[in-house]
Amino acid sequence: MARPQTDLEAGREQLLDIATAMIEERGNGALTMTELAALAGMSPANLYRYFESKEAVIEAIAGRWFAPKVAIMEEVVASDLPPRRKMYEFYARRFALIRGMWERDPVVFQTYCDVGEEHFEVVRSYVDLGDHYLGEIVAEAMADGHFAGLEIDEAISLINQMVAPYVNIGLMGLIMPKLSEEKLARIVDAVFDGLSAVDRGARAVTGLRAA
Amino acid sequence: MARPQTDLEAGREQLLDIATAMIEERGNGALTMTELAALAGMSPANLYRYFESKEAVIEAIAGRWFAPKVAIMEEVVASDLPPRRKMYEFYARRFALIRGMWERDPVVFQTYCDVGEEHFEVVRSYVDLGDHYLGEIVAEAMADGHFAGLEIDEAISLINQMVAPYVNIGLMGLIMPKLSEEKLARIVDAVFDGLSAVDRGARAVTGLRAA
Repeated sequence: MARPQTDLEAGREQLLDIATAMIEERGNGALTMTELAALAGMSPANLYRYFESKEAVIEAIAGRWFAPKVAIMEEVVASDLPPRRKMYEFYARRFALIRGMWERDPVVFQTYCDVGEEHFEVVRSYVDLGDHYLGEIVAEAMADGHFAGLEIDEAISLINQMVAPYVNIGLMGLIMPKLSEEKLARIVDAVFDGLSAVDRGARAVTGLRAA
Repeated sequence: MARPQTDLEAGREQLLDIATAMIEERGNGALTMTELAALAGMSPANLYRYFESKEAVIEAIAGRWFAPKVAIMEEVVASDLPPRRKMYEFYARRFALIRGMWERDPVVFQTYCDVGEEHFEVVRSYVDLGDHYLGEIVAEAMADGHFAGLEIDEAISLINQMVAPYVNIGLMGLIMPKLSEEKLARIVDAVFDGLSAVDRGARAVTGLRAA
């Protein structure tokens, strides 16, 4: 976490520690501005100097949750790995981080899933950021001849769907024991060697011709 | 739905109609045996002649929900389509059925997701049945040379993960507008042309050799 640089920032960080503990100990819905102020030993009016709304507190908690994931994405995309290795690391490193949290406390993990589901408008900007970085990897892969005939946005959508269990934390929590880095690597290899716009028979649309 | 053959079966079907309406109108958690008996105009003791527990009612409702999906799986697996076409139809027909339900009433759809999540022990037997049928398609595909080096169970697990958004109704409900038969077909083609046990560089494990 970045070192707070002003009293205002230091106060915000302390309040976020308290708010995070409220949610982790008592679940999604436990957070109210009145009780947060009371636990922090300040008046509600004073609390609003730090956060203008409960939504602003949630946004800041989301920022803390996503910061290490964003750092991973930036580091992987900026690396000089080939695109296939980049895509694997792009997912595998975040998956390992999230799995570690699930292993430490599945109940707290589920609470974060619930918070994210209730406040999906906050999560969405991070989803969009992930798509942006994935798009950079896809563009590099396309330059190497992969994903023939697909638009970048089509490829992003298809890849998101094919690796969904390694990204969607709700689904991840349901099937964690079935997920592994080894399986993720096989899926990423299948993405690189199998995904294109060419109909090779699954739907058999192009195969329906008059003899 | 099969025609009821005895008074007992006819009574069970009527009770399931009432129980289904209770859940669809008032959500997961609305179903109690006391109220089900009252709505059916019978004593609780009489209700227990038809269903020995609330869990038995839930199991019967799950049976109704899954019956058309099981019929699709049986029909597709028994068909003489090639394995790649079978796998696409195996998922696409059920996806179209479920999407139709979502389009008719997203709130009722979400209620069934909630019921399934709360009573996952009931859902599990249908998940296992789906894996059984998928395994038959996978075995046919392997006989044609696909999925080289993978065990059947490994292939089943990987394919389940790659098509998760078209099977897991909770995830499906979250991203339905992004799902389509066309994308599913591309994913199934990627499964057939890209999935194997050969490490082709995603994880770069086999690439790490001394020079």
